Amino acid sequence: MKKIVIIGGVAAGPKTACHAKRLMPEAEITLIDQDDLISYGGCGIPYFIGGEVNDEKALRSTSFHMVRDEYFFEEAKGLIVKIKTRVIEINRKEKFVTVESVTDQTREKIPYDNLVIATGSQSNILPIPGTDLKGIFTIGSLHSAIDVHKQLAEGNIEKVVVIGGGAIGIEMAEGIEDMWGMETTIVEYLPQLLPNFIDWPLAEMLKQHLIENNVKVFTGEAVTSLEGTEEGNVKAVITSQRKLEADMVIMAVGVRPRDQLAKAAGLLVSPRGGIVVNNRLQTSDPDIYAAGDCIESHNLVSGKKSYAPLGSLANRQGRVVGDNLAGIPSTFNGITGSFIMKAFDTCIGSTGLSYDTAIKEGFNAEKVITTQSDRAHFLPNQAQMPLIMVFDKTSRKVLGLQGFGPMGDGVLARINAAAGMIAKSATIEDFSNLEMAYAPPFSTAVDALNATANVADNLSRGRFKQASIKAFIKWLEDPKTNPDWIAVDTRAENDSKSLANHFSERWLSIPYPEIRKRYQELPKNKQLIIICGAGTRSYEVQIFLDSVGIKDTLVLPGGLIVLRRLGLVDLPE
Amino acid sequence: MKKIVIIGGVAAGPKTACHAKRLMPEAEITLIDQDDLISYGGCGIPYFIGGEVNDEKALRSTSFHMVRDEYFFEEAKGLIVKIKTRVIEINRKEKFVTVESVTDQTREKIPYDNLVIATGSQSNILPIPGTDLKGIFTIGSLHSAIDVHKQLAEGNIEKVVVIGGGAIGIEMAEGIEDMWGMETTIVEYLPQLLPNFIDWPLAEMLKQHLIENNVKVFTGEAVTSLEGTEEGNVKAVITSQRKLEADMVIMAVGVRPRDQLAKAAGLLVSPRGGIVVNNRLQTSDPDIYAAGDCIESHNLVSGKKSYAPLGSLANRQGRVVGDNLAGIPSTFNGITGSFIMKAFDTCIGSTGLSYDTAIKEGFNAEKVITTQSDRAHFLPNQAQMPLIMVFDKTSRKVLGLQGFGPMGDGVLARINAAAGMIAKSATIEDFSNLEMAYAPPFSTAVDALNATANVADNLSRGRFKQASIKAFIKWLEDPKTNPDWIAVDTRAENDSKSLANHFSERWLSIPYPEIRKRYQELPKNKQLIIICGAGTRSYEVQIFLDSVGIKDTLVLPGGLIVLRRLGLVDLPE
Repeated sequence: MKKIVIIGGVAAGPKTACHAKRLMPEAEITLIDQDDLISYGGCGIPYFIGGEVNDEKALRSTSFHMVRDEYFFEEAKGLIVKIKTRVIEINRKEKFVTVESVTDQTREKIPYDNLVIATGSQSNILPIPGTDLKGIFTIGSLHSAIDVHKQLAEGNIEKVVVIGGGAIGIEMAEGIEDMWGMETTIVEYLPQLLPNFIDWPLAEMLKQHLIENNVKVFTGEAVTSLEGTEEGNVKAVITSQRKLEADMVIMAVGVRPRDQLAKAAGLLVSPRGGIVVNNRLQTSDPDIYAAGDCIESHNLVSGKKSYAPLGSLANRQGRVVGDNLAGIPSTFNGITGSFIMKAFDTCIGSTGLSYDTAIKEGFNAEKVITTQSDRAHFLPNQAQMPLIMVFDKTSRKVLGLQGFGPMGDGVLARINAAAGMIAKSATIEDFSNLEMAYAPPFSTAVDALNATANVADNLSRGRFKQASIKAFIKWLEDPKTNPDWIAVDTRAENDSKSLANHFSERWLSIPYPEIRKRYQELPKNKQLIIICGAGTRSYEVQIFLDSVGIKDTLVLPGGLIVLRRLGLVDLPE
Repeated sequence: MKKIVIIGGVAAGPKTACHAKRLMPEAEITLIDQDDLISYGGCGIPYFIGGEVNDEKALRSTSFHMVRDEYFFEEAKGLIVKIKTRVIEINRKEKFVTVESVTDQTREKIPYDNLVIATGSQSNILPIPGTDLKGIFTIGSLHSAIDVHKQLAEGNIEKVVVIGGGAIGIEMAEGIEDMWGMETTIVEYLPQLLPNFIDWPLAEMLKQHLIENNVKVFTGEAVTSLEGTEEGNVKAVITSQRKLEADMVIMAVGVRPRDQLAKAAGLLVSPRGGIVVNNRLQTSDPDIYAAGDCIESHNLVSGKKSYAPLGSLANRQGRVVGDNLAGIPSTFNGITGSFIMKAFDTCIGSTGLSYDTAIKEGFNAEKVITTQSDRAHFLPNQAQMPLIMVFDKTSRKVLGLQGFGPMGDGVLARINAAAGMIAKSATIEDFSNLEMAYAPPFSTAVDALNATANVADNLSRGRFKQASIKAFIKWLEDPKTNPDWIAVDTRAENDSKSLANHFSERWLSIPYPEIRKRYQELPKNKQLIIICGAGTRSYEVQIFLDSVGIKDTLVLPGGLIVLRRLGLVDLPE
């Protein structure tokens, strides 16, 4: 009888255990976890904090409402489950693990034929003074989430500071603001939210939306210390630029792989952290597999190693490990890095590499932004859905896609479509012709994703020349930034009137259908910044002007919709 | 100066014209249409009829609200536009077309260097008596849509019969019922709605939803004639089984390519209809291109020729033709057949081949159905989203995906993800590991699409054995159908009680967590049909029973949710 020992009872561990047991009903499979709460949906924690989920039990229940505790796994799944049990050593030579009870410190040796390490991740703690104060939480386990929920419910908390502007920090801030109405602030060390996942300006649009929903957001600020009361409760967060009062601090500054046990057993562990595995998820010891947040990943887009602690990947990896344990040669070839999150009335998602990451990784990268409708523009519920496509100018491969849209599955539909394509090294042309399903209530005849690929094509072939949005905003604020710039507003006269009045000689109005007749009105020796609502009319005007010899033009990419989403509300309409 | 003549002013024609003009601003491009209304979004007609779109002008406006009439294309786009102008002959030898004014029959010769045929499709008319009566409409043009809208608005219509249960028929029926509250009936000749696109039972679920929304649906009924009043107005639709009173009849029985002009010019036209093109969309005359509803398509999944009249494809093809006209070697390699539609509170979509089609095309096809949650099951707005995956058992390639879910973009997100993968010949494994973006408000950790691929994997490896849903329903109604069947309900005792009582000895209740202890209660020499809510518990029970030697079991795929969606409301809870 094959003996399989699995260390870790959340996501990858239980998934491996159950799948392996189904494939090998005769195997003896032992699932070990140091905690008493296992197999919970950690990604659901912000929704438990935010009140959409009433009871933490829901996060560790099956879809048919059974709590996934040790009894469930024993009775329903036929596993041996040891909770509150810590593995203190892996003896690879004699193939056993030594475990110790967390309750009474008794020890036991458990032999294995195959071992699976699914020890997950642990939350980072900033190396600053004051992190041991009361009222400071990471969201590394369901226990701490229950504590946070309890404290919020007790009603003594007024001000919450979330350190970290990544997905978990933002989700927690939303949950706390939305459900509890507390003064909520996010502090992010890097200059933008969701660094590495999302490029400016989508990250900036998200920031604006959070601010509109009463979440204070400070980016580019280092937290330097935490101050406490005499009783040892946190009372303030000190940043490089301000002091923020706080009764509660959520520290969401990332996680790192829990790989110490593997390292101690002499398994290959990446110097950057993460157990090294092959594409069958075997460690450097072929009898030992690893999966989930504790492993190093292979990024299919960059071709490099990376770290991707995501519950969805952990589950997919668990199935692959289960297959291999049973002798089915499954592979997990790597990750694309798909990501999505809700933020109040909007959602933001990405897959593949961001532009910033692509540049760092050495690609000849370029990016385009579009602001297409998410569904037929003639339907009343259509909305703009800015997309950013990142591609390599040399290979014409699409490296990444990001989207920001109204809450719903519209962004998801584009991210998911792109994820598989990017993993398969699809090119701009593949995306232009990707057969997105079409009916007016769901999309436009040329889907926003296809249209974005078309813009990438135009740019890559030198037909489309785009301005820097940041430079344009700077110029709006101060024309001396670039005295040679003149804005040419190609919207209808009525739409462009107020801006043309406001910026006077810096802002010309020539409606798009009139450009062929009126282009001679344009000034010579000035660089023209062509403007419209979404960027499409501007592109056509640019092409036409090129054909009549007016070649020094740039289009404001994504049009004025981008500026409005960036919160430039002072911009007169 | 290059002269390009484009025949056809809707979708492919204008798209080709505008893209070509942008690439070759110096070219003289003439767009010809026999109608006066051009460049309208034909797919939006049901939403104009249904009132979401107030004005037909919206269907022919740009996203920035300019009406796309002949002046727009001339002024803004720099084209020459000839409306109400019919091309009566293509002279390929001397490279000109002869056109005739629809108004005054004057003729003119227009020379071309390149010609583009984008003549679209024409609506089929059933070869039955009475089709010339007043009140009978096809939705082949915006004019007829305007007529339908006008008649409905006049208030003299009480009963509408839609002939044809394809997408357009259903969309029209919904629009008429929803907006106007008229007694609306769909009659479909084939045994199910959406034949060729959607397999039973999703098509049947859709039918149930239409019926719940007051649309009468008769499938498997041939319309044999149309009866009229003495004044020549339609008054009834006679089918093989009944007489349906009707003041208005919408005939939505498909379209066929308008390829006569091409044929007359000696271009290669498929015997089944459709101009034959290569992957650069050139016809058999290399100076002549064709795009849109008038061409034959290459199906990327079946590898065979097919016909796919869709506005989204027409637009993508238009861009490819434009590229090639300008010397950029773009290709349109074929279609996957992506499709989506709204139906009241639900939506239904598909991509690739349906099971029925795959079998017809000679694949070693199999299909699985799942009823997974569209988002985390612990969130209050989650819903079941039945998916069907069709795959080839020999190659393990996924051939098609279909989904039925609540109205929104959740089904779209899975169809779009599958479309690109299927076009790239992805296998079941590729779908298992497809990196769908995950957060609880959008999906489950193992996305419904991944989970469906896992079920396909289980089935293909012989681990999962499924019952026929149709056979099971028949047995429910009459146990003598299969006297050797016993249902084993693995839901919690409380859930299974009423069915167990109702079906008494035919229906055993053994809750899933108890099966390991209680399996010896199961009868010998009977085939067991294992049942639960969604099919997942049943699969685990099947696997376990197999391991203890009880091998004659079948799982009800998709579980009882499928039966409920099929309208078996009499089934006691």
